[in-house]
Amino acid sequence: MAMDTTARTTSIRQCDLGDQTAFTDSRALTETLAAPLSAEDQTAQSMPDASPTKWHRAHTTWFYEEFLLGPASGYQAFDDGFRYLFNSYYEGVGPRHPRAQRGLITRPGIGEITRYREHVEEAVSRLLRSGLDDEGAAILLLGRHHEQQHQELLVMDAKHLLGRHPFGTAYTDRATNPVPSPVAQTWRAVEGGVVGIGHDGNGFAFDNEGPRHDVLLQPCEIAERTVTNEDWLTFMADRGYDRPELWLSDGWATVQSQGWRAPLHWRDEDGTWLVFTMSGVRRIQLDEPVCHVSFYEADAYARWAGARLPTEHEWEAAVQPVSHLRGQLLDPGRLHPGPAGTHMIGDVWEWTASAYLPYPGFQPAAGAVGEYNGKFMCDQHVLRGASCATPSGHERVSYRNFFPASARWAFSGLRLARS
Amino acid sequence: MAMDTTARTTSIRQCDLGDQTAFTDSRALTETLAAPLSAEDQTAQSMPDASPTKWHRAHTTWFYEEFLLGPASGYQAFDDGFRYLFNSYYEGVGPRHPRAQRGLITRPGIGEITRYREHVEEAVSRLLRSGLDDEGAAILLLGRHHEQQHQELLVMDAKHLLGRHPFGTAYTDRATNPVPSPVAQTWRAVEGGVVGIGHDGNGFAFDNEGPRHDVLLQPCEIAERTVTNEDWLTFMADRGYDRPELWLSDGWATVQSQGWRAPLHWRDEDGTWLVFTMSGVRRIQLDEPVCHVSFYEADAYARWAGARLPTEHEWEAAVQPVSHLRGQLLDPGRLHPGPAGTHMIGDVWEWTASAYLPYPGFQPAAGAVGEYNGKFMCDQHVLRGASCATPSGHERVSYRNFFPASARWAFSGLRLARS
Amino acid sequence: MAMDTTARTTSIRQCDLGDQTAFTDSRALTETLAAPLSAEDQTAQSMPDASPTKWHRAHTTWFYEEFLLGPASGYQAFDDGFRYLFNSYYEGVGPRHPRAQRGLITRPGIGEITRYREHVEEAVSRLLRSGLDDEGAAILLLGRHHEQQHQELLVMDAKHLLGRHPFGTAYTDRATNPVPSPVAQTWRAVEGGVVGIGHDGNGFAFDNEGPRHDVLLQPCEIAERTVTNEDWLTFMADRGYDRPELWLSDGWATVQSQGWRAPLHWRDEDGTWLVFTMSGVRRIQLDEPVCHVSFYEADAYARWAGARLPTEHEWEAAVQPVSHLRGQLLDPGRLHPGPAGTHMIGDVWEWTASAYLPYPGFQPAAGAVGEYNGKFMCDQHVLRGASCATPSGHERVSYRNFFPASARWAFSGLRLARS
Amino acid sequence: MAMDTTARTTSIRQCDLGDQTAFTDSRALTETLAAPLSAEDQTAQSMPDASPTKWHRAHTTWFYEEFLLGPASGYQAFDDGFRYLFNSYYEGVGPRHPRAQRGLITRPGIGEITRYREHVEEAVSRLLRSGLDDEGAAILLLGRHHEQQHQELLVMDAKHLLGRHPFGTAYTDRATNPVPSPVAQTWRAVEGGVVGIGHDGNGFAFDNEGPRHDVLLQPCEIAERTVTNEDWLTFMADRGYDRPELWLSDGWATVQSQGWRAPLHWRDEDGTWLVFTMSGVRRIQLDEPVCHVSFYEADAYARWAGARLPTEHEWEAAVQPVSHLRGQLLDPGRLHPGPAGTHMIGDVWEWTASAYLPYPGFQPAAGAVGEYNGKFMCDQHVLRGASCATPSGHERVSYRNFFPASARWAFSGLRLARS
Repeated sequence: MAMDTTARTTSIRQCDLGDQTAFTDSRALTETLAAPLSAEDQTAQSMPDASPTKWHRAHTTWFYEEFLLGPASGYQAFDDGFRYLFNSYYEGVGPRHPRAQRGLITRPGIGEITRYREHVEEAVSRLLRSGLDDEGAAILLLGRHHEQQHQELLVMDAKHLLGRHPFGTAYTDRATNPVPSPVAQTWRAVEGGVVGIGHDGNGFAFDNEGPRHDVLLQPCEIAERTVTNEDWLTFMADRGYDRPELWLSDGWATVQSQGWRAPLHWRDEDGTWLVFTMSGVRRIQLDEPVCHVSFYEADAYARWAGARLPTEHEWEAAVQPVSHLRGQLLDPGRLHPGPAGTHMIGDVWEWTASAYLPYPGFQPAAGAVGEYNGKFMCDQHVLRGASCATPSGHERVSYRNFFPASARWAFSGLRLARS
Repeated sequence: MAMDTTARTTSIRQCDLGDQTAFTDSRALTETLAAPLSAEDQTAQSMPDASPTKWHRAHTTWFYEEFLLGPASGYQAFDDGFRYLFNSYYEGVGPRHPRAQRGLITRPGIGEITRYREHVEEAVSRLLRSGLDDEGAAILLLGRHHEQQHQELLVMDAKHLLGRHPFGTAYTDRATNPVPSPVAQTWRAVEGGVVGIGHDGNGFAFDNEGPRHDVLLQPCEIAERTVTNEDWLTFMADRGYDRPELWLSDGWATVQSQGWRAPLHWRDEDGTWLVFTMSGVRRIQLDEPVCHVSFYEADAYARWAGARLPTEHEWEAAVQPVSHLRGQLLDPGRLHPGPAGTHMIGDVWEWTASAYLPYPGFQPAAGAVGEYNGKFMCDQHVLRGASCATPSGHERVSYRNFFPASARWAFSGLRLARS
Repeated sequence: MAMDTTARTTSIRQCDLGDQTAFTDSRALTETLAAPLSAEDQTAQSMPDASPTKWHRAHTTWFYEEFLLGPASGYQAFDDGFRYLFNSYYEGVGPRHPRAQRGLITRPGIGEITRYREHVEEAVSRLLRSGLDDEGAAILLLGRHHEQQHQELLVMDAKHLLGRHPFGTAYTDRATNPVPSPVAQTWRAVEGGVVGIGHDGNGFAFDNEGPRHDVLLQPCEIAERTVTNEDWLTFMADRGYDRPELWLSDGWATVQSQGWRAPLHWRDEDGTWLVFTMSGVRRIQLDEPVCHVSFYEADAYARWAGARLPTEHEWEAAVQPVSHLRGQLLDPGRLHPGPAGTHMIGDVWEWTASAYLPYPGFQPAAGAVGEYNGKFMCDQHVLRGASCATPSGHERVSYRNFFPASARWAFSGLRLARS
Repeated sequence: MAMDTTARTTSIRQCDLGDQTAFTDSRALTETLAAPLSAEDQTAQSMPDASPTKWHRAHTTWFYEEFLLGPASGYQAFDDGFRYLFNSYYEGVGPRHPRAQRGLITRPGIGEITRYREHVEEAVSRLLRSGLDDEGAAILLLGRHHEQQHQELLVMDAKHLLGRHPFGTAYTDRATNPVPSPVAQTWRAVEGGVVGIGHDGNGFAFDNEGPRHDVLLQPCEIAERTVTNEDWLTFMADRGYDRPELWLSDGWATVQSQGWRAPLHWRDEDGTWLVFTMSGVRRIQLDEPVCHVSFYEADAYARWAGARLPTEHEWEAAVQPVSHLRGQLLDPGRLHPGPAGTHMIGDVWEWTASAYLPYPGFQPAAGAVGEYNGKFMCDQHVLRGASCATPSGHERVSYRNFFPASARWAFSGLRLARS
């Protein structure tokens, strides 16, 4: 989560009206995303991996308080107890509330969280007007990207909660878009050779995207579109969830222990597959990207299809020449993957074959703020791209998202590759 | 929960203005008890054994809908899904939401629950005006006692939730009463011989309180007051929680696995014992009855004191001659045990030595409404009396409350006996 | 496990040749029962509640060492580590090996256990020749009854282990007896009134069988034979395992979580019910007593049959007039219940409706040897009678066996009663 | 576990007397390693990840029966049930006994396992005399390497079992070697550039060691010796187990939940660190390689030391020029790491920074025999080198061992690297 040197050097020049606007807009988007959720919705925690909406709203606020305002002279904390309640996992900051019990923090209520957000926003704005040094500007920028990450988590977590409700309660009443016709699968050639991988230093990046370094690739092909619901139904019809030879050993064990028969949020109603979306339960759309599948499922599908997942290096090499990274922008009224094939990436995060490991020469930032990406580099899997729930401006070719192999509550799909 | 024959026979005569008033008052008390709790407080579930406030408000309403209104011609259910959401454990009614996931039911929100309550109350009132047959009148009476039970559960569960908050958030701002001087322990003799046990048929009783039957008792003595916090501190100072010889085998295992060092809601702050109350955290009051102890702890304490717990028969025989059963009435602004010794019972439920088993000849009511007391008669322990959180009028000499041996979140204490 | 005063007083007179013979015979029976089991069989632990054969052989030896020989001057312990390894649960003796890890104690091997047994037997015999005081004689007697208990546990535990083997490996090659014709169900009347319950002081008894005391009974009837396999198949055919209304709440939860469809050791092979016996897998015999059912199942069956389980008081009152308590004696070559109806009791332990609680005035013995029955008097259920695996001479009308409601690995069945 | 094409092609020429000798010697080593273990030792399973000695002896035999003899005309299986009991995880072969219950398979006993081994060895020898085709020869070779793997597992698992015994029972009475003087830490430079990684096709290799492919490395340095016990004690003295900033997030959680304070098999006796070895418990030897540490611990140590773990590519590039790979050969009488610094590798497996993933172009073998390495390529970590328990001839520069990050029961240590 610490930014690289380039971001740190250039940030001082951004401490102008644009900073204030970007900060204000970023803060407002969180509230827009939370608005359809009641006090009750915002408080519940549907599983230990997910957090209440209210907690995301407070934690993204605490981040500014802890790392930007705390050191500023004269800042009066809104509530001293919030440092305990809303620290996520920064060991360097001190003890914190257990993650699995975030749903029991009924107080402060959502009204007080709103006041907390306003209190901190005013203090940050004052600080902006009085000017920021390089480090402060870097933290401000980091705080914004941090909040963007939590905006997507807020959406994922809310969808997981609402999806566990027996009646498929909707987040929004707005209907989904009309569906274009399907697009055939085609392959793009990726040349082999030495390619540069990682963030190039222009603009913001998280620490895990660097240092940029050379990697030797072998030639391969990568699919032009992600795998669709129609593809997935074919896999299911071919007994994909019943054939151990398609699965990693841990994946097969998970299929059996969890009883997986389809992606998360799918529901079999008398033989018809429905899906819970943020607009409620409806029929599967065949040409949408399959979403809410685990790494295990993505890997098994690729094996079944006679292909494989791309490595994150192959993915990055394939995408770098694309000028328009993304077809779909975040639309709080339509948090659902669009039809596949209309664009290269941006509807669903794409599982890769790569383990989430440090790039050669990786060093986290010093201090508690550096406790972010590095300490999770173990037994997680890289996803690339962005999703329909990723805030606009948060996507990057070098972006490395990561989840455990069994996670399905992110907006995660897959794209095939072959040697 | 089914009532005995006497209640059924007499209920027809109560179908008058008094019924309407009792019904209305009973419904209002639930809302009074819930009022200090926010939408967030009312939604969270602190453990599988506890339920959200909001769920209690809805379940006590569903009970009337299911058993009283459902059969009435022309009644329009408020929401068909509520039958699934707010059935507690009546297998005969159909499938129901898993108990451990009640905290995930963020919708309906508390506002809709209020409307649900009003909808059902109006329908019941209409039904009352049109007159009830015997069975209907019996269900109405049962529904009121059922709601009273849940009023106490609502308080217990809310206290458990608030007590898990790291900062000891209070339910009420009202201070606790001044403390009288302590009362010395004295013993009351209970004569042996054949005594009648169980409800005598005058007024309402749950099915588990009958049939009334004769039991042969041996003479014993029973303490005039319950065990106090001061007594308990002496037990603790004598290493009561460290001596396996004082404990039942399962109790000792629980002490070790749970790390029990004091009653639930007690907190050791630098060597001083504080207690979380509904009015917030404060110092222990020495002459209050000890509260929030498990059967295991009560049993160990009695062994340490050279005494034992009374059986439920001894308890009932000792209490029957008392004209004023209870000193303390439910006060929603002060949900805390009063000072011991001012009265015989009513501050804390009292663990007995008796397993919760059917009385000879016990028969539950037919149908789903009979799925109440009978099916829990296994590995539970009887508590007698009433507590500061028991609604006024709900207490009875024959009342049999029950909890598992490890439960501590009820307002549970103990009274000693000796042969 | 401590004996009552009567046993203690009379024991000094038994310190003669009869004592030596009884001791020797009792020790030999353990070895006879263990003989068909290999070193491997004797070492494995099939579940935390069961112990390895080898452990039973050592623990029953340790008991003499700890409580009889230890205090005797000049006794040299066989191995100091055995005090840690083979103490069962006597907190007063000191730390001990965790119960659930008894299967990891591969050393000492069975050969060394045999030498340990011989070492202790020689020391006891020497002590017997030199004479025992009252307390020593009482411990000797207690040790014999203690070993008898473990003989039955050894058989139960070995059957459980062998029964978990996928191929139903037999303990003995000897075939089971021919089967008599079935016996019709008849009822014996039990008069009400005040009856004396508990051991009368003649001969040995465990502490939990006393003090003898009066109980007021209401008249009832009790079945002349236990429930048979044929009865049980009728219950199963009537969907007994599928109807929640027949079950206690905890029982129904257990049926579902454990997937119970039949008694333990039964196996459905293409629609035919087979049973694993100590002689291997064979077809169900219709007129044998049903065996290896839990309290939950016994209770559900009784409810289904329109009857109930007898209380332990009713059981004892009904059996007291019977001169010949038991038809079947322990036969190490045939550890299987005989055909029902040929005798009153003795094939299977019979679940009662009674919780396992202390009799009025119960006091355990002082010291570690008293840590037996008392500390388990919580959430267990009384079984009466004896089984085909109970050593001859160990049965008593006042005997109180006990297990948790879900236990099925004992030789446990049931007998019906009705008011 | 399937071998690569080269091995398959050349194997036909090895089907001579050398094959018979290698087969016989390999089989004999398993028996030599098992010999100090009693029937009881060979039967117990100390944790789900470990298997009984007896099971290893049978499984390595079953492998020949299933994959080599089964297809051969006229072979009579020793016991049809063994296919169920001794299949490890080959889904293609059919159902199998649950892994966590291997300790309950008391039958067949170790005597029958010996006869099973002899039966299969005779059949294989007959087959060898009659000649093998290419595929048969490849399976024979694979069977030998498979058995070598299980020889090390047998030792690891036995050590884990004996190490859980409260008294530190020894596997062998033979004392450990005298200790040489410590060796200073020095660094070997590894040049960057494109290097070939993976097995070169000369001789046997497992499928996961290929295909050989080019990798682009950056220059680095790698330590000449592994980390020693003395180094580890310094880490411990510097509160290495108490400082969250040194640990991966999952590692820190494991340290806390498992209470790790030192490597597995270390014991703190009144402030002195002892270690359980196969020769029993003795004091820590300072200049021995630290052993029985997890990936989490290795990673934390490296961070503390201001270094890092090498990647498997760096490790292989550094070791390739070494002519004598290994200083220590397997000695069944001394299964303990030798003093560090006397040689490059061979005492302890060395954790690398690399996740266990397929090499580019990896393809498992067809059929059930291919269900080996590929399906475990998820959330495991590569170890390189060999250990004191690796059979002679089983080590290879390209060998890829793998375990989960929390595993400590292998003979696992670490070597530092730095960029």
